[in-house]
Amino acid sequence: MKQLIEQIKAKQSLLCVGLDTDITKIPRHLLAEEDPLFAFNKAIIEATHPFAVAYKPNIAFYEAHGEKGWRSLKKTIDYLNTFYPEIFTIADAKRGDIGNTATMYAKAFFEDMQFDSVTVAPYMGRDSVEPFLAFENKSTILLALTSNEGAFDFQTQEIEGEALYKKVLRTSLSWKNSQQLMYVVGATKAEYLKEIRQIAPNHFLLVPGVGAQGGSLEEVCRYGLNDQYGLLINSSRGIIYASKGEDFATVAAEKAQELQEEMKKLMTNIY
Amino acid sequence: MKQLIEQIKAKQSLLCVGLDTDITKIPRHLLAEEDPLFAFNKAIIEATHPFAVAYKPNIAFYEAHGEKGWRSLKKTIDYLNTFYPEIFTIADAKRGDIGNTATMYAKAFFEDMQFDSVTVAPYMGRDSVEPFLAFENKSTILLALTSNEGAFDFQTQEIEGEALYKKVLRTSLSWKNSQQLMYVVGATKAEYLKEIRQIAPNHFLLVPGVGAQGGSLEEVCRYGLNDQYGLLINSSRGIIYASKGEDFATVAAEKAQELQEEMKKLMTNIY
Repeated sequence: MKQLIEQIKAKQSLLCVGLDTDITKIPRHLLAEEDPLFAFNKAIIEATHPFAVAYKPNIAFYEAHGEKGWRSLKKTIDYLNTFYPEIFTIADAKRGDIGNTATMYAKAFFEDMQFDSVTVAPYMGRDSVEPFLAFENKSTILLALTSNEGAFDFQTQEIEGEALYKKVLRTSLSWKNSQQLMYVVGATKAEYLKEIRQIAPNHFLLVPGVGAQGGSLEEVCRYGLNDQYGLLINSSRGIIYASKGEDFATVAAEKAQELQEEMKKLMTNIY
Repeated sequence: MKQLIEQIKAKQSLLCVGLDTDITKIPRHLLAEEDPLFAFNKAIIEATHPFAVAYKPNIAFYEAHGEKGWRSLKKTIDYLNTFYPEIFTIADAKRGDIGNTATMYAKAFFEDMQFDSVTVAPYMGRDSVEPFLAFENKSTILLALTSNEGAFDFQTQEIEGEALYKKVLRTSLSWKNSQQLMYVVGATKAEYLKEIRQIAPNHFLLVPGVGAQGGSLEEVCRYGLNDQYGLLINSSRGIIYASKGEDFATVAAEKAQELQEEMKKLMTNIY
């Protein structure tokens, strides 16, 4: 966590690059590689690491290839931990199961893979999240308010006078080792972020969907930044698929830098 | 689905055997095998298949071993689909992600692995579940009311005058291809099952935690059975770890048969 804050300060960036590496979307010339997913990730990491403070592979894209995909994921995280151990890593797995089973998932991502954090769903409650929180020096990123349309099906519905996602935030703060929690918070409406900061002023928020899914970077920073920065802002497709040609990595770096420079400006103004 | 109902009728059983195959809990002599997880599963399946209408590997136990675990899982599902294609299979993955990402997970379990069904979490709403429902002849098993303590954190909280899990049930019935839904329903209290059957009279319910986690088989059958049976009752540890010796498969078969005979009696009385 300390290292993440240092990275944010040093790079003047809140950027998390989402490695949603889809075999049907990566440049065609990479398909000749032995491990196209890893070859793509490696090139993206090499090109964007000066501007990124975190990388977030979405596990679905690897799991879809079974055993082989799992190998690509392992190579990606090993590459990050070997060459850029200072960069924060997120297994975007959205897991949720109880007790011993949750511990199994936690071990897979925290111990075998050595990710710094993993995303977890709240529906099954405390005993589905605390097993993740039991791992020292690891962060558990709880889904609170997601940025998709379906978020309005349950998350924003009122439970005892407040929206379910607020109830999730408030309740989770009472769980054991809750200081190791972060929250996934969509930036679809600025007012949400403001309210969330009232409930959880000190926790890091992982914000997906700036840009494509709505939500302006400026508003996210204005309402989301706290005195430890407290924000990670993810971009996936806007960076990694900015070009589908052989120049994909160079263009990805340009896009990452653009975002980082915008972030730097906002961080200076607001901070 | 038709095949599942036929199996239930032919075997007079509602039994789903949970393959929560934990390397630290399987008999020690299996550790000499090249693939201990698969060797264990194969022996359990061989011994229990006359009494079981479904098998449910919990994905966490395989994922915890990375690439290797994924291979054991693949071998297990291939074995089931080759030798017992009439038996219903459930990937207990509790996944939940949106759009394209959800489709990736669905492909992994429905296409690559050829599972008949997968468990999915509801927190992210419609667009996290419909991508699973888009696969024909496959079932999506939505978490409604789980049997753990944490179920009381959010699932039973009142939202617009009714418990969240009821809201999940009711809302999901309006989603596209909702006829392909089943629901995970804990049997901690019989009254819950009664109310759930009022909301979803025709859907199959997957009931974990009969026995160990409370909930009597008799009550589950009384309140859960419908005119297409409509029930799958899971047992994991009570069967697969009934003996830790070399006789583990024989003892597992005995335990499975005991449960099946009890089920038969209840099915005859109630049906």
